[in-house]
This record gives sequence, C-alpha cells and structure tokens, in this order.
Amino acid sequence: MKTVAVIMGSKSDYEVCQQAIKVLTDLGVNVYKEVVSAHRTPERLSAFGIEASGKYDVVIAAAGGSAHLPGMVAAFTNVPVIGLPIKSKALNGVDSLLSIVQMPPGVPVSTVAINGGMNAGLLAAQMLAISDGELRAKLDQFKLEMKEDVIKNHNEAICK
Amino acid sequence: MKTVAVIMGSKSDYEVCQQAIKVLTDLGVNVYKEVVSAHRTPERLSAFGIEASGKYDVVIAAAGGSAHLPGMVAAFTNVPVIGLPIKSKALNGVDSLLSIVQMPPGVPVSTVAINGGMNAGLLAAQMLAISDGELRAKLDQFKLEMKEDVIKNHNEAICK
Amino acid sequence: MKTVAVIMGSKSDYEVCQQAIKVLTDLGVNVYKEVVSAHRTPERLSAFGIEASGKYDVVIAAAGGSAHLPGMVAAFTNVPVIGLPIKSKALNGVDSLLSIVQMPPGVPVSTVAINGGMNAGLLAAQMLAISDGELRAKLDQFKLEMKEDVIKNHNEAICK
Amino acid sequence: MKTVAVIMGSKSDYEVCQQAIKVLTDLGVNVYKEVVSAHRTPERLSAFGIEASGKYDVVIAAAGGSAHLPGMVAAFTNVPVIGLPIKSKALNGVDSLLSIVQMPPGVPVSTVAINGGMNAGLLAAQMLAISDGELRAKLDQFKLEMKEDVIKNHNEAICK
Amino acid sequence: MKTVAVIMGSKSDYEVCQQAIKVLTDLGVNVYKEVVSAHRTPERLSAFGIEASGKYDVVIAAAGGSAHLPGMVAAFTNVPVIGLPIKSKALNGVDSLLSIVQMPPGVPVSTVAINGGMNAGLLAAQMLAISDGELRAKLDQFKLEMKEDVIKNHNEAICK
Amino acid sequence: MKTVAVIMGSKSDYEVCQQAIKVLTDLGVNVYKEVVSAHRTPERLSAFGIEASGKYDVVIAAAGGSAHLPGMVAAFTNVPVIGLPIKSKALNGVDSLLSIVQMPPGVPVSTVAINGGMNAGLLAAQMLAISDGELRAKLDQFKLEMKEDVIKNHNEAICK
Amino acid sequence: MKTVAVIMGSKSDYEVCQQAIKVLTDLGVNVYKEVVSAHRTPERLSAFGIEASGKYDVVIAAAGGSAHLPGMVAAFTNVPVIGLPIKSKALNGVDSLLSIVQMPPGVPVSTVAINGGMNAGLLAAQMLAISDGELRAKLDQFKLEMKEDVIKNHNEAICK
Amino acid sequence: MKTVAVIMGSKSDYEVCQQAIKVLTDLGVNVYKEVVSAHRTPERLSAFGIEASGKYDVVIAAAGGSAHLPGMVAAFTNVPVIGLPIKSKALNGVDSLLSIVQMPPGVPVSTVAINGGMNAGLLAAQMLAISDGELRAKLDQFKLEMKEDVIKNHNEAICK
Repeated sequence: MKTVAVIMGSKSDYEVCQQAIKVLTDLGVNVYKEVVSAHRTPERLSAFGIEASGKYDVVIAAAGGSAHLPGMVAAFTNVPVIGLPIKSKALNGVDSLLSIVQMPPGVPVSTVAINGGMNAGLLAAQMLAISDGELRAKLDQFKLEMKEDVIKNHNEAICK
Repeated sequence: MKTVAVIMGSKSDYEVCQQAIKVLTDLGVNVYKEVVSAHRTPERLSAFGIEASGKYDVVIAAAGGSAHLPGMVAAFTNVPVIGLPIKSKALNGVDSLLSIVQMPPGVPVSTVAINGGMNAGLLAAQMLAISDGELRAKLDQFKLEMKEDVIKNHNEAICK
Repeated sequence: MKTVAVIMGSKSDYEVCQQAIKVLTDLGVNVYKEVVSAHRTPERLSAFGIEASGKYDVVIAAAGGSAHLPGMVAAFTNVPVIGLPIKSKALNGVDSLLSIVQMPPGVPVSTVAINGGMNAGLLAAQMLAISDGELRAKLDQFKLEMKEDVIKNHNEAICK
Repeated sequence: MKTVAVIMGSKSDYEVCQQAIKVLTDLGVNVYKEVVSAHRTPERLSAFGIEASGKYDVVIAAAGGSAHLPGMVAAFTNVPVIGLPIKSKALNGVDSLLSIVQMPPGVPVSTVAINGGMNAGLLAAQMLAISDGELRAKLDQFKLEMKEDVIKNHNEAICK
Repeated sequence: MKTVAVIMGSKSDYEVCQQAIKVLTDLGVNVYKEVVSAHRTPERLSAFGIEASGKYDVVIAAAGGSAHLPGMVAAFTNVPVIGLPIKSKALNGVDSLLSIVQMPPGVPVSTVAINGGMNAGLLAAQMLAISDGELRAKLDQFKLEMKEDVIKNHNEAICK
Repeated sequence: MKTVAVIMGSKSDYEVCQQAIKVLTDLGVNVYKEVVSAHRTPERLSAFGIEASGKYDVVIAAAGGSAHLPGMVAAFTNVPVIGLPIKSKALNGVDSLLSIVQMPPGVPVSTVAINGGMNAGLLAAQMLAISDGELRAKLDQFKLEMKEDVIKNHNEAICK
Repeated sequence: MKTVAVIMGSKSDYEVCQQAIKVLTDLGVNVYKEVVSAHRTPERLSAFGIEASGKYDVVIAAAGGSAHLPGMVAAFTNVPVIGLPIKSKALNGVDSLLSIVQMPPGVPVSTVAINGGMNAGLLAAQMLAISDGELRAKLDQFKLEMKEDVIKNHNEAICK
Repeated sequence: MKTVAVIMGSKSDYEVCQQAIKVLTDLGVNVYKEVVSAHRTPERLSAFGIEASGKYDVVIAAAGGSAHLPGMVAAFTNVPVIGLPIKSKALNGVDSLLSIVQMPPGVPVSTVAINGGMNAGLLAAQMLAISDGELRAKLDQFKLEMKEDVIKNHNEAICK
C-alpha cells in the first residue's frame, strides 16, 4: 500500500495540513504525519530525507516564512516532494512561496498555492494514481462531484 | 512505456522546455511535445486535456504572463500537471508564477521555479519513478553526479 | 435587447458581482448570471465561450487567485470580455489581477480594479452605449448625479 | 463610420501604440491619433475628454509611470476608454498598471497588459463589433488565422 | 496671510486629512478644505488648478487607488502640490503611492508617506516658512517638543 | 538670494542630480552641491543638517538602497527636504523609494519619482516661488514651453 | 561583563524588543534599553553611536517604516548593529526591511526577520559567544530544548 | 587565530563572495572557503554545520533563489551565520533575500544586502572585533579612510 508522508515545520501549520490529510484519507491513501522542523530538528530532517525513499511514495512538506523544509527534503531524496507554503504573519506567504518554489536546477519541489492544503493532498494522490487505476477512478469521481456541486449548488446560491 | 507530454503556450517557450525534454530523454523517458495555446487554440486545449489520461502519464505545461495553460489542462484531467512559469518581458515571470501556482482548492498544479525547465523534467521523472525502480535508480545516479560535480568541479573553480 | 452575461468562478464571488448586476439593472440592461468555473466546469466554460457571440453582447467574468475564467472565455469569443479580479485571501488580489490583465497579444481582456464590481457593470454599459444613444444618455445622467453627490454631500460631510 | 482615438502621454509611447493602430487599420477601422499629455497639456486633455463623445466611439489612452491619462479621459466621457500601461524605466510598468487599473467606483478604465498595444486595438474593435457584424466577422477571421498559425507554424518551429 | 488648500478625492479621505488640517491650524496657518474628485468632478479639478496660484500658497491633495488628484492639480499650477497617498482596501496604498510619486519630468508632486496626514501638514508649513521666520520658529518649537516627548515619555513608557 | 543645496550619498548619484542642478541654474536659482554620505560621513551629515537653516532655503538629498540621507537631514532641520530616490542595482529603486517616503509622523520628506532629478529641481523652485513672483513667472513660462513642445514636436513626431 | 544595548525608534516598538530583552536576560547577558529616535532625537542618535564602542558590545536597533536607526548607528560605530525591522501599518514591514537591509558597501547592518525580536536577542548572544564558551554552552542548551520541544510537544499536538 | 568560513551554494556565487574574502584578508582575518550546496550536497552541509563550532568563529553563507544554505547552517550551530543573498536571474534577489531573512524564532541568520559581499566580510570582522581590540582598530581605520574618500574624492569628482 502506498503511503504519503505529511510533514510540517511547526504544529501551527497543522490546520492547513489537515486539509491534505483529509482528502488523502477520504481517497483511501495511507498517511503518515510528523512535525519535522528544518531549523529546530535538522538531524531529524536529514534522517527523514535519507530514509524517505524506502518508506514513503510522496512527501508533502508544509512551511512558512524562510520555508526550507520542502527543498531540504528534496535534497535528500528522489521521492517527489510537494511544497505547501503557509501564509505568514508579516508577508502573507510571499516569503514562504518564493522560498519553496524558486529551487535551483537539479532539485525540484512541486509547489502548490499558499495555504493550499487540499491541493497538496490531491496532487499527491494524482502522482500515486499514475500507476493506480483505482485511485485515478476515485479522483475522477471527486472531479465529477466538484463539477456537479458548482453546477447545482453554486448556481442555486446566486439565484436566491 | 510511460510518456510525458511537454506542451507550451508559444514557440518562444521552447528554449526553456528543451531543458525538460533533454533531462527526460537522458533518463530514457518517452516525451511528446506540442504547442498548445490556451488562448489561441482553446479547442485543442480541451481536446488535449480530455484525452490526456489515456495517452500521457504526466503533463508539463509551460506558459508566461497570464499563464492559463497548466491550470486549464489540470481542469480536464487527473494526470498530474507540472506548471512551468516562463519569465515574462515586463514582470520577469511574477505574473506567470502567480497565474500558475495560486490554483483554487480541487484542481492542483505542481509548480516549479520561473524558467525551471530542467526541474520540470526531473519532477516528472520523480513522479514516474514512484512505480518504476529502474527510473528511480537513474535519478539517484543523477543526484550522485550532481553532488560530485559540486564537490569536485565547483570547489576547483573557486580555488584557482 | 442587449444582454450582458455576468459569470463568476465561485458563489463566493457573487457579492462583488452584484454591484455589476445592480448598476446594469438600474440602467435597464438585461443581465444573465451564472457560476462558471474554469477549473471545475471546464466543459461548461467551453460551451459558454462558444455560444457567447450568439447570446450575449458583453461578458463580465469574475475570478480570484489563478484567475483563468476571463481569459479563457476571451479565447473562445470576440464578444468583449470584462475581467473582474476578486480580492484573494493570501495575496489581496495581486494574483487575480496579474492572471487576468497580462494576456498575450491576440486575446484581450478588458480589466477593471480589484473587486471593482460596479465599474465592470458601468464599462459593459459604456460598450453597449457605443450604438445606443439612450443608454449613453442614462450613463451621462449617472455621471452627473455622481458629480453632484461629491459637490454637495461629500463637501457637507467634511464641513460638519 | 466608427472611429477609435489613440492618444498617448508622450511621443515615446508611440511605438507601442502603433501596434494598436496597425491592427485597427488592418480591420478597416478609422483611427485618430494625438499626443495628449495629462500633465503637460491638461487643458487639451479636458477639451479632448469633453468632445470625445461626439467624435470618437472608443478611446485608447497609453501612458507610463504615474499614468493619469486614461482615468482622466474617462472622467470626462462615457465613451469607453481603454488604458494601455507603458513599461516604465524603473518599475517596469507596475506603476503604470496600478495607476490605470485601480480606478474608483463610478469611472471605469478598461485596462490591457503592460505594453499590450495590439490587444488595445483588438479590444476596441471588439467593442465596435457589438453592433457591427462585418467587423465581428473580421475579428473571427483574425482569431482563426491566429489559431492556424499556432497549429502549423509554432509546431513546425519546435519540431525542427 | 498664507493659505494652504487641503483637497481630497472623497469624504472617506477626510480622517487622514484632518491630521494635516490640525497641525496647520495649530501652527496658525490658514486652511481651506474641499472634496475635489479628479474622476467625478474633473471640471472642478481644472478650475481649482487654474485658480490655485492666485488663491493658495500650497496645495495638499489626498487620494487613494488610481490616485490622480495630486498630479492633475500639479499639471495646472506651479503652486507646490503635496500628494498624500491614502491606504487602499486591496493593495494597502501601494497603488496610491505609485500613482502619486512616479510623475514624469516637468510636473513634480511632493509625496509623503501612505496615510501621512500630519507630515503633509508639516511639509506645507515648512514650505511657507522659507519666507516666514515666525512660522519657522514655531516649527522649531514643534521639533523640540517632539524630541522632549521621546526623551521623557517614550523612555518612561519602556521603563515601567 | 535664495539657495538650494543639492547633496547626494555618493558621486555615483551625480548624474541624476545634475538634472536638478541644471533646471535650477536655468531658472536663476543659486545652487550649492556636496557629497554627504549618511553612512560614511555621519558627522558631516549632522553638521550639514544643523547649519542648514541658516544657509539654505531648500535641500535636495539624493540617495539609493537603504536611502537614509534625506530623512536624516530632515531630522535636523525645518528647511524643506526633497528626497530623490536613486534607482538601485538589485531592486530598481523600490528600496530607495520606500526608505525615503515612509517617514514617521513629525519629520516629513518631500519625495519625488525614482531618478526624478529634474522634478526635484522644479519642486525646489516651486517652493521658493511661494514668495518670489519673478521665479513663479519663470516656472509658468517653463510650463508653457513644455506644453507647446508636446502640442508641436511630439505630435509632429508621431505623424511622420 | 558584556552588554547589549537594545534601542528602538518609538515606544510602540517595545513589545517586539521585549522578546530580545527576555532571551538575553534569560541567557544572563546584561541589557541596556533606550528609545532613540533617528528622526526625532538625531543628536542623541549621534551621541549614542559615538560612545557605543566604549559602552556596548552589540547594539540591537529596532525601527519601522523609513527605518533609519540601525543604519545610522552603524555609521558611527564598528560595534555590530543588529537591525530589527518592525511590521508597519500600511506595508507590513516591507519598507522597514528594505530600509534596514539594503545598506551600501562599507557599513553593514545585521538584519533579522520582520518582528523577529527573539532572533535579534539570540543573534546578539551568538556574537558574544564567539569569545565566551559559557554563553555558547547556554545557547547550545537553548537549541537542544527547542529541538526537544518540537520532537515532543509539537508532535503530541498534531496527534491529538 | 580566528577564522571565518565563507561558503556558497554554487561556484557562480564566488564573484560576490570574493568581496567578503578580500576585505577579511585585508583586515588580517583567516578565511576558509568552500562550495557547500544545501540542495546538491546536503550531507556535506550537515557535516559542515555540525563541526562549525569547533573550527570557525563566524560563517558567511551565500545563496540565491530558494536560498536555504544560511538558515540550514544556522540550524546546526550557534556560530553566528551571516546570510548573503545573491541576485537571482528572474526575481533580482527578492527570493534570495526573503528565503534568508525571514527565519523563524529560535534560529537567527544575520542578513546583509543583496550581493552585499563586502558588508558580509565587514560584519564578520565586527563580530570578531567584539573581543579583539586590534581588529576593532583596523575597522576604525577602514571607516576613517572611507570617510576621507567621500570628503575628498567623491567631492572632487562632482566638482569637475
């Protein structure tokens, strides 16, 4: 069974990460979660990065401000790393986004929107679904329900 | 055999896309390429998006300015879409980056750095390698060579 | 009778869109409204865009974040498309604005201010008034009342 | 016969404006051109704005930096005003764009991309085509040729 | 007796303008106040600008968003114009600041900080004090009191 | 006779300052010039600031990057200080502009555009002209010539 | 005994400065605190800067907006100056950060994050610890406790 | 004898780093240099960080784009780390600066200006000089020469 690790730089990032965890769990994907701080637990970061390829299929790494966690995990592994920029207090996440997305050639981080927790989860599932037709079918079903929600509920809401 | 589609909004994006194509070809991944303009060939975009899941395993979509191509392909398919923001003339790619990365909940785009062609290719390979041990091994070899290049060549260069 | 379509990417954009709808209705212009999500209902977007020229005279399209709706409608039709950038949570609408306004040569979107719902409506009316003297007269009357409101009410307010 | 006025704040804006003039002329639309500086010829600006509704059907106004020309013309008339932000020396047109697009409720300016001269012209034509089927047909033909150029020439270019 | 005109684009700018009015009144400078909207009362703007040199010694002009009022008054007169950028809803006054400060060569606007109402008043007084030794002395007294306030009150506050 | 001091943080700022010096000299205003570096000659800065009110009527202070010169001169004197932000290498003068314009309540700096040397000179002259009718007349003549240049030369240029 | 001076431009900066004072006090470092306004008490700033090298080992200087205090202290002394940018009302501290960090060659300011009070204190302690093994040991202990807090408390929090 | 380590993420950062190396060497400080890439040689980064406190007194770490090197070294050691943001191709170093400076509470990085190589060296020397009177004297001499250069050479240059 495939597993997605959801790591975050601080417990304060958990609320956004829960969106990823929820969507993955709903899709039947196994989730591992841990607070791994690039700056406060760098040895754990290294260990996590080194052992990632044997344990996880995708890593979601959330961080804010000088957000080094996603890029540093990606430095250690070729497991795809999804960077999830957290909205920061002063700069609204512009710092988080640029710290995560502007990686140098050779070490990619797959970046989603600021506070885009649900999309981090969906993207991880899409990656797993490359070789998992059943999961792809569930994602297609999710897409369909989303579409129907817009067509029906959103349009009802604006017609009241 | 797995295939990555590399599409771009204009022939002027090709130079950056070639970095992705080269790294994928070097890694033995099959590449399909096409200019698909979200704004000038929207019917082709729809058709490409609808048929993507049967034909491609990952899509790399490059675009600049009001960069709608990656997000619109992602609207049609659950094949993972890697968005590659192209540096734009007036705003240096800030517009491209924000247009691509700030997707709403439900439709993720996996975004790499501005003009990050090589990383788009590597990220696509990492996604395929989730279920392809041989490709993972090649990526690990690539990582190793990159490391040795820094340790040896970069350090020699600064010691002259 | 001329008709303006007001479409929006989500029901959450409706509050800003209502400003456009109100000013158009007050001016006696026929309004059609619908939630059309570029990312969640892309087939509806295509269909809307293709049939627009037979049904609507102007389209107002509101969207936030990676705001692709206005540009994608403009890709399908030569009916003028007014892009209305919605203020976004993290980036205050800078992402919405740049996604909408920085369109490539060949496919214009007529962009108004962030959350500028009333101006989207007025601009649509100005476009229709090119060939509708009566509507132009109503707009001139609106301009006159706005002027008188400043001269009288605003100045009274600061003299209290 | 319908006429579009193309005005600009300085002769240095002419190169970008020529793109608008060319596309309009190619589409058979009558074009009037003049340098009207909001800051150096404010009386001419007022006169232009006051007489616009009798003489022109659409106004394209190009300006850079503290770009006040489009908004000030729009203050005087209900003829639709297309604001064309010119790339500026220090800030690359961010100042021009924000000065033009962030108009207050009541006085819209229809804004296109920084240096988006061709789109200013096309947008003016789209506005005129609301009540001119022949012009709409020409625009549809332009769209078609643009599409074919992508499908054929752009794709040939990347296959060499 | 010298007079400073404090004009503003909307009654909503009055709160910030009151800081300027208060400091000027405290310094014994005559103040004239009026709402003059560049976009809603452009004829009044022209009239104000044309007659300014006979009536006022300095003009303070406050505006937000596409803030054209200060630059347009400066277009009509050589009375010094102080531009006061008002914090805007979406962009926090970045649009106001750039619209006001980036004036083209030939037509200066003397710009102060976003929402810097008190400084607009003090700067106007400093301009008048070039030829008014008594006013200069009052400004020097103000500076002295400000200094003493820091030395005494601010330091007391942090020692509690 | 009135004197304007033009000071700058470095000899590299001189090219932009010469525009101010030229326009003031052309208008018959006496100019004093000196390199005063806030960071490298802080004692000279203090001395300059303290003696300014006895020697100069207006101060123009140019600086780039962490541009502290204008604000620090203004801290010492009630002579009006015009801040001239110099375009910087990395950030194009955004740092210079914000360092200069965002002064706290109590100490204004009259800020002009990035690299706006000529406007710094004109603004100084406008300040002096508050009590110098002859200088005001020269400024009015300058405005008139600028207007005629646009009406004649700029319009000729675009009609070739 | 080594002493760190913590100065700030206004009493309103005190809350953020207290984080620095607390961490230094906890580490047993002597702290001196004072409000020194670059703009309102420039003579005190000069005096402080001139006497700093005899009295303090490190200076922490906090300021917001046009934040000149850190750079101006650094102009007077070779005691290391840590610049602490305070979040500002309109621009969220972008102005403070750029004013502080973009110092010209020759006069460095050691800049920490916007509102990064604790880090300013820690950085000062790290500087002192270069030649103080006991302080270094305390900092190492602090780092250890921080790590354990993440491993234990943060992870517990997300497992509830 | 005290030693400053100058590390950089790539050989392309060497030109800016040489400014730091030169000023330190001129001041008689021992310099160690190495390319340590956070993303390509993460094990070397960990090893460097862990052993830093026994070998170096200050670390200067230069990096561009997603600049993680300075913060990650700081995660491993309490040796003061000076972050030197390198100007990047697309975003001019805004990404580098924000990645480096916005560190979370607990792990400071002492940040200098974009491409501020000389200041990184001077700041390292200032830190060492806290407990090295001879080095402080050399820094004071450097400051004096810089001052005299401005007073004499810069002023001569603008008087030609």
